[in-house]
Amino acid sequence: MKDLGALIFPGFELLDLFGPLEMFGLLPDHYRLHLVAETPGAVASAQGPQAVATVGLAERDSFDLLLVPGGRGTRALVKDKGMLDRIARSCAACDHVLSVCTGSAVLAKAGVLDGRRATTNKAAFEQMMTHGPEVDWVREARWVEDGKFFTASGVSAGMDMALAVIAKLDGMEAAEQVAIWAEYEWHRDADWDPFAKVHGLI
Amino acid sequence: MKDLGALIFPGFELLDLFGPLEMFGLLPDHYRLHLVAETPGAVASAQGPQAVATVGLAERDSFDLLLVPGGRGTRALVKDKGMLDRIARSCAACDHVLSVCTGSAVLAKAGVLDGRRATTNKAAFEQMMTHGPEVDWVREARWVEDGKFFTASGVSAGMDMALAVIAKLDGMEAAEQVAIWAEYEWHRDADWDPFAKVHGLI
Repeated sequence: MKDLGALIFPGFELLDLFGPLEMFGLLPDHYRLHLVAETPGAVASAQGPQAVATVGLAERDSFDLLLVPGGRGTRALVKDKGMLDRIARSCAACDHVLSVCTGSAVLAKAGVLDGRRATTNKAAFEQMMTHGPEVDWVREARWVEDGKFFTASGVSAGMDMALAVIAKLDGMEAAEQVAIWAEYEWHRDADWDPFAKVHGLI
Repeated sequence: MKDLGALIFPGFELLDLFGPLEMFGLLPDHYRLHLVAETPGAVASAQGPQAVATVGLAERDSFDLLLVPGGRGTRALVKDKGMLDRIARSCAACDHVLSVCTGSAVLAKAGVLDGRRATTNKAAFEQMMTHGPEVDWVREARWVEDGKFFTASGVSAGMDMALAVIAKLDGMEAAEQVAIWAEYEWHRDADWDPFAKVHGLI
């Protein structure tokens, strides 16, 4: 059984968070999900609906997997030195670190992606790159794996990345079964990325 | 501006709810999202993470759109006469009613799909049919539109249906823009359904 801590903060993007959590959550014997925030309590998403953090980062920051979603709330997060320090410490303590969309800008600003390959949202790619000048940003990728870090492109890409993580940790058969349960057409190819072209990145 | 009420109940499926809410939420000038439950407060999903209902059904049941997700919590909901009555009243009061996955079993049991075409989760299709013997169940469909009702197949199908609803209410250009923002490969064809075959329904 693995513990997955999913970070939420005011203005997190709904699908960045709950897309991957759906996939991991379909294997309840393999993953236990925790919503984590600076302090426990209700946190409003970018779209309005609130989720409840049951864990505060000061209380626990070590999980088998850490998931960092994006959303317009990342604009404040990349300026919050205290939270960036806590996130960097949590990344050091976790076996795998996953980000979706602009969540990788948070990881970059926390310094944990320096010297690593990573990707992010394709609509705001150039701007996101400024948060990590030492990161090897990949312009065309659905997701990128580098060591213990998995970074996904925009929003829905988190679901494809989550299935890739499941394939790695639980085997391809488990990932395929999860995709079928969710009636999800999984893009298994990390290089599949029509949105890089839509946004003129290639 | 349209008000969308999304019903949550103990054991709702995360992606059934938050997939469509992501899509509608990307048009904040068009849709205002409300999480609705029997009574306001935190409600645990099938996967564990909790969301917060800000509206109780007794307080408000009339919205421009009502969204009913599925999840294992529907097993209790289809036996809850009080809630089924409230849901039926809410369906009568809303301009559009959307369900995802086993959420259509709840609508069927509430009697609002009698004589209508509808679809549901493909893994539990035969069992779901028993909740609505007077419903014209469609075995092969990503989603089905009949009058004011849109019913989606399992879990991730809700996102494709949400985009179809947006295309209908806001125009195709808006739906295409939302899909690009979410970096989502939209299945625009309501008849696209490889999972009907996977589960031997066709």
